[in-house]
Amino acid sequence: MTLSASPSETDLDAGSDLAPVAGHASVSGPRQDGPLYQRLAAQYRRVMTAGALKAGDRFPSVRALMRQHGVSLATATRVCHELEDAGWLEARPRSGYFVRRQRGATLPAVAEPETSALPAAAQYVGLHERISAVIAMQQRYPDAMNLGGATAAPALYPGERLQSLATKALRREPALLTAVGADHGHAAFRQAISRRALSAGFTVAPADVIVTHGAIEAVNLALRAVAQAGDTVAIESPAFFGLLQILESLGLRALEIPTSPRHGLSVEALELALASYERIAAVVVVPNLQNPLGSIMPDARKAALVALCARHGVPLIEDEPYRELADTPSLKALKAWDRDGGVIHCASFNKVLAPGLRLGWITAGRWQARVAMLKFAQSRHNETWPQIVAAEMIASGAYDRHLAQLRTRLRAQREACADAICRYFPPGTRLGTPEGGLVLWVELPTGVSSQRVFERALVEEGIRVAPGTMFSNSDRYAHCMRLSCPAPFSAAIDDALRRLGALVARLANAAAGD
Amino acid sequence: MTLSASPSETDLDAGSDLAPVAGHASVSGPRQDGPLYQRLAAQYRRVMTAGALKAGDRFPSVRALMRQHGVSLATATRVCHELEDAGWLEARPRSGYFVRRQRGATLPAVAEPETSALPAAAQYVGLHERISAVIAMQQRYPDAMNLGGATAAPALYPGERLQSLATKALRREPALLTAVGADHGHAAFRQAISRRALSAGFTVAPADVIVTHGAIEAVNLALRAVAQAGDTVAIESPAFFGLLQILESLGLRALEIPTSPRHGLSVEALELALASYERIAAVVVVPNLQNPLGSIMPDARKAALVALCARHGVPLIEDEPYRELADTPSLKALKAWDRDGGVIHCASFNKVLAPGLRLGWITAGRWQARVAMLKFAQSRHNETWPQIVAAEMIASGAYDRHLAQLRTRLRAQREACADAICRYFPPGTRLGTPEGGLVLWVELPTGVSSQRVFERALVEEGIRVAPGTMFSNSDRYAHCMRLSCPAPFSAAIDDALRRLGALVARLANAAAGD
Repeated sequence: MTLSASPSETDLDAGSDLAPVAGHASVSGPRQDGPLYQRLAAQYRRVMTAGALKAGDRFPSVRALMRQHGVSLATATRVCHELEDAGWLEARPRSGYFVRRQRGATLPAVAEPETSALPAAAQYVGLHERISAVIAMQQRYPDAMNLGGATAAPALYPGERLQSLATKALRREPALLTAVGADHGHAAFRQAISRRALSAGFTVAPADVIVTHGAIEAVNLALRAVAQAGDTVAIESPAFFGLLQILESLGLRALEIPTSPRHGLSVEALELALASYERIAAVVVVPNLQNPLGSIMPDARKAALVALCARHGVPLIEDEPYRELADTPSLKALKAWDRDGGVIHCASFNKVLAPGLRLGWITAGRWQARVAMLKFAQSRHNETWPQIVAAEMIASGAYDRHLAQLRTRLRAQREACADAICRYFPPGTRLGTPEGGLVLWVELPTGVSSQRVFERALVEEGIRVAPGTMFSNSDRYAHCMRLSCPAPFSAAIDDALRRLGALVARLANAAAGD
Repeated sequence: MTLSASPSETDLDAGSDLAPVAGHASVSGPRQDGPLYQRLAAQYRRVMTAGALKAGDRFPSVRALMRQHGVSLATATRVCHELEDAGWLEARPRSGYFVRRQRGATLPAVAEPETSALPAAAQYVGLHERISAVIAMQQRYPDAMNLGGATAAPALYPGERLQSLATKALRREPALLTAVGADHGHAAFRQAISRRALSAGFTVAPADVIVTHGAIEAVNLALRAVAQAGDTVAIESPAFFGLLQILESLGLRALEIPTSPRHGLSVEALELALASYERIAAVVVVPNLQNPLGSIMPDARKAALVALCARHGVPLIEDEPYRELADTPSLKALKAWDRDGGVIHCASFNKVLAPGLRLGWITAGRWQARVAMLKFAQSRHNETWPQIVAAEMIASGAYDRHLAQLRTRLRAQREACADAICRYFPPGTRLGTPEGGLVLWVELPTGVSSQRVFERALVEEGIRVAPGTMFSNSDRYAHCMRLSCPAPFSAAIDDALRRLGALVARLANAAAGD
């Protein structure tokens, strides 16, 4: 552990107020301009790149930085934030900052959005054709390496265990396929969900759990319960394309709120929008491992968001398909801060337990009766057998063991993919560093169109990616793409990312030559 | 076979123009007033009640009636229609009329609706609370004998075969529960449906089959594709309460079109409505074994309905959960007459194959792309497993064998229940005689409220029925109820119907005493 790590004297600009600190070899670097905190952060980056501060090392405390460099509290704090934002440091609660796992080479973090300007006015969503075109084109190349999805490879889910439980249930319950199921869900499954909600920081009675066909149906029901065609719904930007399709299919307008790749929806931008625009019928948020950014809202932001929506009387719909894939277990749901039933919680087992069970659920606070009515009218109860299987996975502890393993694997896959992207993608690329899940958000160099990358990667390289154009009703993310890491890292994946990086480099060069 | 059966001379009114015919014993009866055809029909009823004409006997032809009674063609034809409407005769194509199976005692057929008056203007549906109250009350008596549903008992479905196919599929396909399924449905299942549609009189390419969560989701998607909140939708009256709930949940208005217990939706009443009311966004019909009436539209009516809707450019949505439960196999769907893609066909395997698979499908003609989009946005693809099981049932021929058996059983159950109702229910009761399925529509004696029967039957007798108030947005069917025959007839069912009949008799007496 290196408590006093700092750049050596030779790295510091002449005339700076930064004092040298002993204990590290000199790391040479270019002379820098810009504000003091940026210059100091750049020096520390070089120290870390050179390996003088290694992954897992404790980073100097703010007080140590103040003392060692003779800088103000504000400057020292900004140095830490700057390095954290760029993915060099991670904050651990009550322990300070630590150096994150180093990469062979690094790419800067994806840009933070502007949050102090008023978000652009809401628009009707007209995205379905664009998304359908992408999906139709994907389907013409079914053998492409799939780095465009958001679901882990089948081998990462507990297939044998699930099939064995399903087979046993079929043997044990002769009327499993021939009897009508229970309204709103199977008792044991609703019980299991009720117990499990405690780890997300809230309580829900089994009777208030309504089982759905994935979180997709849950979010549909939530929106149908609180909004009418023509209404405006505030969503994250970028957002999961499935949400945009739901809004389009319901004739709702999307108000895209800037969202940080690190800490999620900008509460301040939402506040501005709520104060400026007429009536916002609902806010839809993925607070944990946002798709496509992978951001996680810190607790303070979650609390502020719930309070803001409560103050304005706006229903807050949270979509939680990924929470249990976070590196840190037991993240809290927004529902944990709900005091007046204003939060509608939607969750799914598709990504975390089994894509083939198509199980989700909803608990809808003040709109519980209306959501129950809508679900009954829309598709009746879910099949019983997937609920029995999932309930037994949860009750036996097998689900928790599976999750621990899945998290570890996804982290390894994600970090190996990120390393490869850093190695192979050209300068000008920026990369998100989510703390869980299996997707990475990539900003491409200036002038490179993700739609172009998508098409050429599929046709020429046999690689499927998700172009940024899918994640907004605007063209705001035409230069971004979502890359996923669904399977254990392999030479084939390494090679695919190498070829993808080369393609991006060619397109970047062509754009620079225009 | 008795070709020349007719009432004997003594049964005929003095001064009538009806000539006696030899061959039958005199059957005494009260002197009758009313038009000639009614008096003649009444005489034939007495002949049949006395057993002089027995079940299966050929009824005199129209020409024979004309000759024997010296009546006009119009009168002779009306006699046959009157007796057919009342359930005494059945028409067999190209063979004339035959005496239906006689009952120990008979009840008159449920009344035919008035079809020449303009249907009442469309109303927003506000039925959910009424239906919820019924369902909630049912749930407080879970052990009641269930004569209120529309699904056969689990034992009537091929449970063992289904579970065995499911188990084999689980063993054979290791990623069955862990892989994402195919958009819009599993290929083998869509293929099986495509082949099977031929027996309903139409062709559909596998690519145009969209698999849904039962017909409920299919009808939802169909209505969402063609109508907006506030629009008017023409439906049958009485209608399946689930359809009324769908309309309510989508903010649609219901225009209730008179529907015959024998031959379904009144095409003439619909035509009147289309000519008189502003814009009807869609027509929803259950052409085969309508729920709750059990009516089957004759082919000529089906053709006329499709042509009428095509002429007016109104989307025609057909809901087909029951067709394959008809006594006559291979009834045609409305889709068989569709020439311009104006018919949206919705079907389900819940009632015919397995309530626990929750499988339905839709093919949407001109609205195919929109329905595909809505389904994707609403709940994505269905689970793969049930589709594999159903596809294998169909492909192996096991489904057809099951259906043949199920039809026979349901017919026996239905007729035994109808007999019991005839034995036990008081005068003033009228009873439908559907040619398939498992539900019977019962009109109660004057002054008897079906809601009252429902409540007292449940609380006092432990019997669940479906009150007529569930089947219309109006109170038009407050004096009707739907009784189902889900299980093989037994002493317990006989006893339940006896007690139910006694309850109705007590309520009828009380009403008469008011």
